[in-house]
Amino acid sequence: MTRTVDVPDLVARARSGEPRAVARLISLVEDASPHLRDVAAALAPHTGRAQVIGITGSPGVGKSTMTSQLVSALRRKELRVGVLAVDPTSPFSGGALLGDRVRMQDHATDPGVFIRSMASRGHLGGLSWATPQALRVLDAAGCDVVLIETVGVGQSEVEVAGLADTTLVLVAPGMGDGIQAAKAGILEIADVFVVNKADRDGADQTVRELKHGLSLARRERLGPSWRAPVVRAVAARGEGIDDLVAAIGEHRSWLVDRGELEHRRQARAAAEVEAIALAQLRSRIGDLRGGTALDQLAKRVAAGEVDPYAAADDLVEGLR
Amino acid sequence: MTRTVDVPDLVARARSGEPRAVARLISLVEDASPHLRDVAAALAPHTGRAQVIGITGSPGVGKSTMTSQLVSALRRKELRVGVLAVDPTSPFSGGALLGDRVRMQDHATDPGVFIRSMASRGHLGGLSWATPQALRVLDAAGCDVVLIETVGVGQSEVEVAGLADTTLVLVAPGMGDGIQAAKAGILEIADVFVVNKADRDGADQTVRELKHGLSLARRERLGPSWRAPVVRAVAARGEGIDDLVAAIGEHRSWLVDRGELEHRRQARAAAEVEAIALAQLRSRIGDLRGGTALDQLAKRVAAGEVDPYAAADDLVEGLR
Repeated sequence: MTRTVDVPDLVARARSGEPRAVARLISLVEDASPHLRDVAAALAPHTGRAQVIGITGSPGVGKSTMTSQLVSALRRKELRVGVLAVDPTSPFSGGALLGDRVRMQDHATDPGVFIRSMASRGHLGGLSWATPQALRVLDAAGCDVVLIETVGVGQSEVEVAGLADTTLVLVAPGMGDGIQAAKAGILEIADVFVVNKADRDGADQTVRELKHGLSLARRERLGPSWRAPVVRAVAARGEGIDDLVAAIGEHRSWLVDRGELEHRRQARAAAEVEAIALAQLRSRIGDLRGGTALDQLAKRVAAGEVDPYAAADDLVEGLR
Repeated sequence: MTRTVDVPDLVARARSGEPRAVARLISLVEDASPHLRDVAAALAPHTGRAQVIGITGSPGVGKSTMTSQLVSALRRKELRVGVLAVDPTSPFSGGALLGDRVRMQDHATDPGVFIRSMASRGHLGGLSWATPQALRVLDAAGCDVVLIETVGVGQSEVEVAGLADTTLVLVAPGMGDGIQAAKAGILEIADVFVVNKADRDGADQTVRELKHGLSLARRERLGPSWRAPVVRAVAARGEGIDDLVAAIGEHRSWLVDRGELEHRRQARAAAEVEAIALAQLRSRIGDLRGGTALDQLAKRVAAGEVDPYAAADDLVEGLR
């Protein structure tokens, strides 16, 4: 199916808040369409405004319910909200998270909310490479806040922290998450901890474990730094949401006051540019592979005629 | 500590079977020492001989016990055997798998067996990038067979399949592994399935699940292909080991007869060369980062002055 794409027109319509134009732009970046570069260029002047909040945590911890509650709270402040739900465990687009997305249906008819599920590309998990581009679409479309929700598996939680201004890590009592967090390096990426389902047995212990882990981690750092608060909530009943919104606001003020927001965003842009550059280089190597340069080198390596480092030198030389 | 390294001498001593020289060479490649390239060049002419067998499976499935049994079986045939135990979950070198390695102590004093534990480099799992180089050391040292054992988490099992001529996937009854295997794309990487602990309840069901999954997967493929057998074993009692060795031998014959062994090894070499080339390019980009080129671009991207694709073009241009 060929379809003419008028990128400037699409961007103009997305900026006026037309949901279909927003959806189409995200599809264009997600499918790595030939228009991807045009879209990126057209979006650039309109980006950099949205506040980006990452939400991660183990399966079953209540991320979708919490996301839905945050959307409601932000809408009460008359903010435009985008939601990117990224499922790094699914190789399939779109439908992967529909089960969970049912909880988001409260917002499906709200013209001030854009919701998009994204699957990861490729076989092996990790945040979709298209996520930063989709974020740019929502940013340019005038979202004041974009929530990026992803399940905490493998490196996706680290990647979501890389994209977000503020990263929320949800844990629940009795899942051993407090101790897990300390082990898995989660203490470093969380700007705000949320103990969800805090009406359950073990909530106090989970809060204690987190605070203990945080105090140990803090001691290892030099100089003053943000002290990640631990917020209790029961998302299913809307409890603790105001505290969470307040904590997010405090973190944002801290970021702005210290120039850290600018710093994080530049680091994010650097990572994005670097990833795109590497993808380009990889694809050139792929072209070389198709063009038999890599295959010829590989044959010689397999035969012991040349070592893989010398072969890699030849390959890099061939890119010039 | 500076230590003079006589690479040709080390390689000569490793080839004569001196364990300390083998260990030293693996350390040199594992630590990405300045001698890495010299080592790779000196090893190249002596590589490509060893048969490589990958062993993967969930934690607790009995991989180390099975590996130890396979070593014994191969030693009875008077073959020299190398074992690389890669723990992709540990950021620490060496000691990571020592608990399990206790089972390998039967072979610790056997001069025909080299055993090496390797941790993954970097924070986020995946097989150690040094594994292919360590494999080359063992190959050049005259190992007839190298067993690469890794726990099946995330992409490590896919990576081990990429390194091996024959990949064994171990499952155990009652762990839901049969169904998991069908879900997780394991059916595609296994050349031989081993239902270990086959004296336990549920072994028949696990075998059925695997065979069912395999028959479905086979139907989706075009043309004839290897039919991965399902072997029952009780590694702790040495049962089923002969069947397993036979199955590995049949797979090897199949590979050789169809020219597939050569094809796999070239694909492996291509992947290795590509990975080294990309690492070189990434490090050059890193140099650019230090040299402020990437930082300047990132600032402009964050400010919306340029889109990330155009910035990446500039960056790649700067590599020339």
